[in-house]
Amino acid sequence: MNVSLLTIGNEILSGDTINSNVAWISRSLSEIGCSIQTQITVPDVEKPIVKTLNQLLNDGPAFVIITGGLGPTTDDITRNVLFNFVGTGSEFDEDYWDKMKKRFEKYDMDIPESNRSQALIPTNGHIIPNPVGSARGFLFRKENTVIISLPGVPSEMKVMMNESIIPMIKEEGLAPIFNKTLRTVGIPESALIEKIEPVLNTNHGCNLGYYPSIFGVDIKISHSDEGPVENLSNDIYKILGVSIYGEGKVSLEDVVIQLAKNKNKTVSTAESCTGGLIGHRLTEVSGSSDVYKGGLVVYSNESKMNMLGVEKDILEAHGAVSEETAESMARNVKNKFNTDYGISVTGIAGPTGGTDEKPVGLVYIGMAKKGRVKVKEFHFGTNRKRNKLRTSHVALNWLRLSLLH
Amino acid sequence: MNVSLLTIGNEILSGDTINSNVAWISRSLSEIGCSIQTQITVPDVEKPIVKTLNQLLNDGPAFVIITGGLGPTTDDITRNVLFNFVGTGSEFDEDYWDKMKKRFEKYDMDIPESNRSQALIPTNGHIIPNPVGSARGFLFRKENTVIISLPGVPSEMKVMMNESIIPMIKEEGLAPIFNKTLRTVGIPESALIEKIEPVLNTNHGCNLGYYPSIFGVDIKISHSDEGPVENLSNDIYKILGVSIYGEGKVSLEDVVIQLAKNKNKTVSTAESCTGGLIGHRLTEVSGSSDVYKGGLVVYSNESKMNMLGVEKDILEAHGAVSEETAESMARNVKNKFNTDYGISVTGIAGPTGGTDEKPVGLVYIGMAKKGRVKVKEFHFGTNRKRNKLRTSHVALNWLRLSLLH
Repeated sequence: MNVSLLTIGNEILSGDTINSNVAWISRSLSEIGCSIQTQITVPDVEKPIVKTLNQLLNDGPAFVIITGGLGPTTDDITRNVLFNFVGTGSEFDEDYWDKMKKRFEKYDMDIPESNRSQALIPTNGHIIPNPVGSARGFLFRKENTVIISLPGVPSEMKVMMNESIIPMIKEEGLAPIFNKTLRTVGIPESALIEKIEPVLNTNHGCNLGYYPSIFGVDIKISHSDEGPVENLSNDIYKILGVSIYGEGKVSLEDVVIQLAKNKNKTVSTAESCTGGLIGHRLTEVSGSSDVYKGGLVVYSNESKMNMLGVEKDILEAHGAVSEETAESMARNVKNKFNTDYGISVTGIAGPTGGTDEKPVGLVYIGMAKKGRVKVKEFHFGTNRKRNKLRTSHVALNWLRLSLLH
Repeated sequence: MNVSLLTIGNEILSGDTINSNVAWISRSLSEIGCSIQTQITVPDVEKPIVKTLNQLLNDGPAFVIITGGLGPTTDDITRNVLFNFVGTGSEFDEDYWDKMKKRFEKYDMDIPESNRSQALIPTNGHIIPNPVGSARGFLFRKENTVIISLPGVPSEMKVMMNESIIPMIKEEGLAPIFNKTLRTVGIPESALIEKIEPVLNTNHGCNLGYYPSIFGVDIKISHSDEGPVENLSNDIYKILGVSIYGEGKVSLEDVVIQLAKNKNKTVSTAESCTGGLIGHRLTEVSGSSDVYKGGLVVYSNESKMNMLGVEKDILEAHGAVSEETAESMARNVKNKFNTDYGISVTGIAGPTGGTDEKPVGLVYIGMAKKGRVKVKEFHFGTNRKRNKLRTSHVALNWLRLSLLH
C-alpha cells in the first residue's frame, strides 16, 4: 500500500527542528507493510501546500499523511487550506469548545479566542480524536486517496497514529513485510558486497539495503514471506561469519556485555587517547556492572606511571604511543582490577600532535588475557572525534572476537 | 536565494535513518541568508528522481542540492540518473582510480571493481572534491538552476558543504543575515522565556528561536543588521549571566577546557555511573591534555576501595551511592592524580537497581579543590543513557562555574 508524507512547517525547512516525525511515521508504516513513496516538507504557505497536494494526488497513493500546522496561532494554516482543498464547509463544535474551555480553567487560565479555530469540524470529512492535546486531526477522501491531517507535536501525533491511523490502515488488509538487519563490522561496503556476491546472484527474491556508518555496514533484507529472508540471511551468515556481530538494533557493546556475561568473564580498560569512551560505551548497557569492573584514564605520562605502573624506561625508550606502552597498560590494568581481560588504548587522536615517525591517527590497542598480551597497530585519519570512535569500536570488536574463542 | 533539497535513499523513506543531513544543510544555508523552498525524499529509483527534479526545476530555484546515492553499489544510482538527466557524457578518471587503489592498498585490500563508478567524471559538469571519502560530488547547470550532488554520509557531506558549496553560495552575493546563538544551561525553556520577557517586549526588531535539548536551551537571535542582534544579546546577557556558557556551536567541554587552560588548572575524574563519559567529553577537545590528567572508572565496590582508596567503612555504612562515597572519591582522585580539581560521580543510572530509599536517577556529584570537597545530590529520571548524559553535563557545568570564581 502506497503512502506519501507531507510535513508543513517553517521550523523544519529552516533546519531548526529535525524532522523526526516523518522518520517515526515511515518506520511505523513500513513495519506493517506500507511502502512510503515520498516525504515532502513545505512552508506554512497556502500555494506550495496546494501545489504539492495536487502533485501527490496525481500519483494516486492510498494515503497522504500530513503533519503540522494545526495549532491555534495565525501561522497554523493547514486546517483552512485543507478545507478549501477538499471543498468542505465547516461547523463550530460547541461541545468541544466547552471541553477546551474547561481544560484551560483547570490551569486557572482563560481560553484565548484564537483556540476557536480548533473547534471547527468539516461537514464533508471526519475528526480524528486527540487524547493528549487540543488539536484534533482530520480525514478526507479525495479521488482515490485518503488524506489525513495530524498535529506536528510528536507526542500527540504518535498517540493518534497508534490509536486511530495504524489500526485503520491495518484493516485495509496489508500484505506483511518480513525483514532482518545484519550488522557487520570491519569490512568496507564495496568489499562486503563483493564477498557476498555469490549469494546475491542467486534467485533469492529479497530486497536488500546497505547502510554504512563509521561503525560498519548494516545489511537489511526484506521480503513479503519469512522463508526467503531466513534463507538469504543464513547464506550471508555462512560467508561473513563473525563479521556479523548482531541483528536489528543491537549495538556492539550490547553484544560484548552479553557474551562476557554468558562466559562469566570480567573486563577492565586503560584508556589514553579515547579518554574514557570505551568505558562509557560499555556502561551504556544495563547490567554491565556484572562484566565491567572499571578502568583508568591515563592522559599524561605521570598518570601512566603513577596510576598504572607503566615503567619509566618504557615511556622514555619507546614513548607513550608505542606497542610497548600499550602492552604494559593492558597487562597492568588487568592485574590492578583483577579482571579476565584488560584492554588498553594509546594513540594520537589529533588533529595536532603528530610527528613524521608517529603521525596523527596512529593507535595501539592492547589486549591482556590469561597472562598473554597482544598489541595491534592501527592507522586512522586526522579527525579527533572519528579517531576516538573508530578506536573504541575496533577495541570492542577485538574484545568480542576474543570472547568468542 | 531559493534552494531546494532532494534526498535520495530508501533508508530514509523506510524510516530506518532519520534525515539529519537535510536539517543540517537547511540550518547552514538559512544562516547565510538562503530560503529553503522544499525538502523532498525519493527512493533510489530513476523515475521518481527524474520526475521530482523536473518539478523542482520548474520552480526555478537558484540551487538544488541532492544528497545520497553516490556509493559504489548497484543501488547507488544517483550518478547515472543525473548524468542522463543533464545530458552529459562521462570519462574515466585514471588518476583518481589510482588514488583510490592506493587507499585500499594501505589497508592491505584489493579495490573492488564496483568502485570504478566512483572514478567517473562528467564531460559537461564539475567535480566537487571529497577530502574524507571516495565518493566525489558533482555540479551541473540546467536552465537557471545549479544542481549539486553530494554523498549521503554525513561526515563527507558536511566537509564538502563547508569547503566547497557554502563558500560558493556566499560568493553569489546574498543579503547577509546576522545571527547569534546563546547557549544556556540549567534553566527550563518556559522559565527562561519568563526571565527574559522584559527585554523580549522591547522594540528590538529581531527574530528569536528557542532550541531546547537535554543539555539546555539555545537562544538564536537574528536580524538583517548587526546592531539589533548585539543590543538584544547584551540585554539577555545582563539577565542570564553565567547561565549562558557560550555562543554559536561551542560545547560546554570546549568552554571548560579553555577556562581551565587560561587559569592554568588541572582536572581529574572519578566516575562510577557515568562510566567514563566525563573523561570522554573532556578529551573531545583538542589540547585537553594540558588540563585533563586522567581519571578512574570505578564500577564496582572493589575498584572503589582498591583503586581509589574509598574506605570500606564508608561503603558499608552509607553505600556506594551516597554523599560520603562521592566525597571520598573526589578527594582521593584529586590527590592520586595531583590535580587542582577532582570531580566524582556516583549514582543509579537505571533502568533497574533502584530501591525505595535510593531510587533510579539518584546521583551524587563531588567536587574537590584546595582541600575542600563539596557534594551535591540530584534526582534525574529512569532512562539510563539520558541520566548519564545529564550527570556529565551537570558535572561539567559545576566545574565551569568553579573555574569562574
